Amino acid sequence: MKKVKRKPVEKQRKKTGLVREKKTKVLSALTGLGDRLYNQISHRQFPWIEMPNRSIYNIQYDQKLRQYVLGTKAVRRSSRNIKHIRPLTQLVWTASFVDELREQDRTSTLRDVFYSAQAYEMNFTDQTESDNIITDLETVIGHSREDFNVFPEERSAIFGNLTIEYTVPGYEGKRLNLASHPDGMMIGPALTNAEFIECKADKIIAIEKGGLFTRFVEEKVHEKHKAILVHTAGQAPRATRSLIRRMSQELDLPVYIFCDADPWGMHIAMVIISGSANAAHLRDLNTPDAKWAGVWASDIVQYDLPSDKLTDLDVKRLYELQKDPRYDGKLWKREIETFLKVKRKAEQEAFSRYGLAYIVDEYLPAKLEAMESY
Amino acid sequence: MKKVKRKPVEKQRKKTGLVREKKTKVLSALTGLGDRLYNQISHRQFPWIEMPNRSIYNIQYDQKLRQYVLGTKAVRRSSRNIKHIRPLTQLVWTASFVDELREQDRTSTLRDVFYSAQAYEMNFTDQTESDNIITDLETVIGHSREDFNVFPEERSAIFGNLTIEYTVPGYEGKRLNLASHPDGMMIGPALTNAEFIECKADKIIAIEKGGLFTRFVEEKVHEKHKAILVHTAGQAPRATRSLIRRMSQELDLPVYIFCDADPWGMHIAMVIISGSANAAHLRDLNTPDAKWAGVWASDIVQYDLPSDKLTDLDVKRLYELQKDPRYDGKLWKREIETFLKVKRKAEQEAFSRYGLAYIVDEYLPAKLEAMESY
Repeated sequence: MKKVKRKPVEKQRKKTGLVREKKTKVLSALTGLGDRLYNQISHRQFPWIEMPNRSIYNIQYDQKLRQYVLGTKAVRRSSRNIKHIRPLTQLVWTASFVDELREQDRTSTLRDVFYSAQAYEMNFTDQTESDNIITDLETVIGHSREDFNVFPEERSAIFGNLTIEYTVPGYEGKRLNLASHPDGMMIGPALTNAEFIECKADKIIAIEKGGLFTRFVEEKVHEKHKAILVHTAGQAPRATRSLIRRMSQELDLPVYIFCDADPWGMHIAMVIISGSANAAHLRDLNTPDAKWAGVWASDIVQYDLPSDKLTDLDVKRLYELQKDPRYDGKLWKREIETFLKVKRKAEQEAFSRYGLAYIVDEYLPAKLEAMESY
Repeated sequence: MKKVKRKPVEKQRKKTGLVREKKTKVLSALTGLGDRLYNQISHRQFPWIEMPNRSIYNIQYDQKLRQYVLGTKAVRRSSRNIKHIRPLTQLVWTASFVDELREQDRTSTLRDVFYSAQAYEMNFTDQTESDNIITDLETVIGHSREDFNVFPEERSAIFGNLTIEYTVPGYEGKRLNLASHPDGMMIGPALTNAEFIECKADKIIAIEKGGLFTRFVEEKVHEKHKAILVHTAGQAPRATRSLIRRMSQELDLPVYIFCDADPWGMHIAMVIISGSANAAHLRDLNTPDAKWAGVWASDIVQYDLPSDKLTDLDVKRLYELQKDPRYDGKLWKREIETFLKVKRKAEQEAFSRYGLAYIVDEYLPAKLEAMESY
């Protein structure tokens, strides 16, 4: 197997400080928004903001960035317009709320923001309205909500030989090796905001299923293949996608994704690689160089895996994926066609028919080697 | 606030070794099953097994144990009966498979067992059939599947000042303090099989929602209230329920459970306390002395929480709970009645209307004090 190139630790260490750097950027984006509004008012203008339009007519797939981006259409919200006063006020309140979070070193959730508004007599009809305003704020300041301390409820996990340094209060400066707990460490605000200190892995392997994540740990994939293992727990939460991107970039590691062999598993891989249309206003969530390493439709045939018939919904989904610009690659096209031809799907656990260790001892090395040519 | 009694660390440490002790018990139960079958065959009998009947007609609520138990009805499966040959053979194979898992220090999932059967040309029509045989095996040997290395897919998390010692291969003898990672440590096979070494907490607080778990960590509930925090992630997985029971018993700590104020949240607490009917054949999953500390229906009124109308499904569920023997307690009855009277439900996050720290600074201490009288 070709050895994966890796920059020496020395070079990696120099990158430490990136989290603090980003925090400064987010703060200055927030301050910038406040300054603009303040200036407008001091110049006796009705305050207004402008941001890219997020309607589907303004979403395009960018082949170079390999992700969806927003086009040139913009929306303007001005307090001159009585209809705009409500969302503009909500946006300004949300910006001041997340600035408070930042200042107090607290994190929050989308739901918490909705309820917190009531403490300020800020009115949101329902959580959909407050969620939407948070997406507006992401669009205006160009950073995802995790960057301004609003985290999702879902958690996934990580395990591997990477030493991190916390930046969150109470843990600042403390270090932990992510192989310390073999059930995995949750990926939450503390890990998302940690600096990478030292990495002895040379690749990242993301896995859809919890059972298989545990199998990989037990079979010592982290040692045998020098891998950092990420458990996506189904569709990877945004914090996890952003962590995979950071590890891939800052540590210069290749990423391999293993999911169930069905259109939904494929799409878990795709969202890690090319992001989703509703994050078209953001830039730091996807990992374009990550590889979908399996389980492929052709693996069902090649490995004679126990499989189930595709449902009508599965088939419908495959036809949708065929039209999706993100799937415009040789491998993706070939595998979608294979799914439609063999009309079967298989789960990652199906390899257990050859014994529990087979997936790690046989399938994984064969796949990692084959991936060199993709 | 009354100080909770706690046995000194000295006494706790003596309990170390319980995990290894249990493993010996499970092995001898498995060997016992094999011995019985072997003896039957050497005495020229058609091999047979007998186990308590799990049909709903044989499930009773035991007020003393405060959990469901199986009655005296038994089922016998004999290889004399041609209809019994299939499930009996499947059971014996499953017992030998989990013995192999134990010997190789591997864990597995329900799904893995289903697929693994094919490696042995053992026939299961679908996963429902193999799941059912695993429950049979639990019934026969009197230990839950996690004790013989078959784990669920779901994971929840833990955080707090408890030092554990791993017993799993590669980590044997290694120790970790569960406050090392502020996003929480996943509760999987390694944690389930860990010995407790030193505990500086004096209570356990289980929390339904991930966002609130993070809030509790950030607001330092583990320090301010000397608490071990458990994130149940909705309905607590069995491994988590069993870990809560172990901590409560081995470390002699009181357990408080906080969920959403609705019938589903109540039931998350109840299953931790009194278990479920479909685990009536097991004894080590529930924590009868754990307390449902909130969010109560009466808290919605007392704290004037933002709330939603109960749906028809919620109301139907409340009437079901009224008839459930587990809910035959003063507090439960009062709160079910309050729900039906105020016709509202509220989420844990609703306290954020008074500021993000309110739930920790005001509600939690008031509740912990009030719980002394329940």
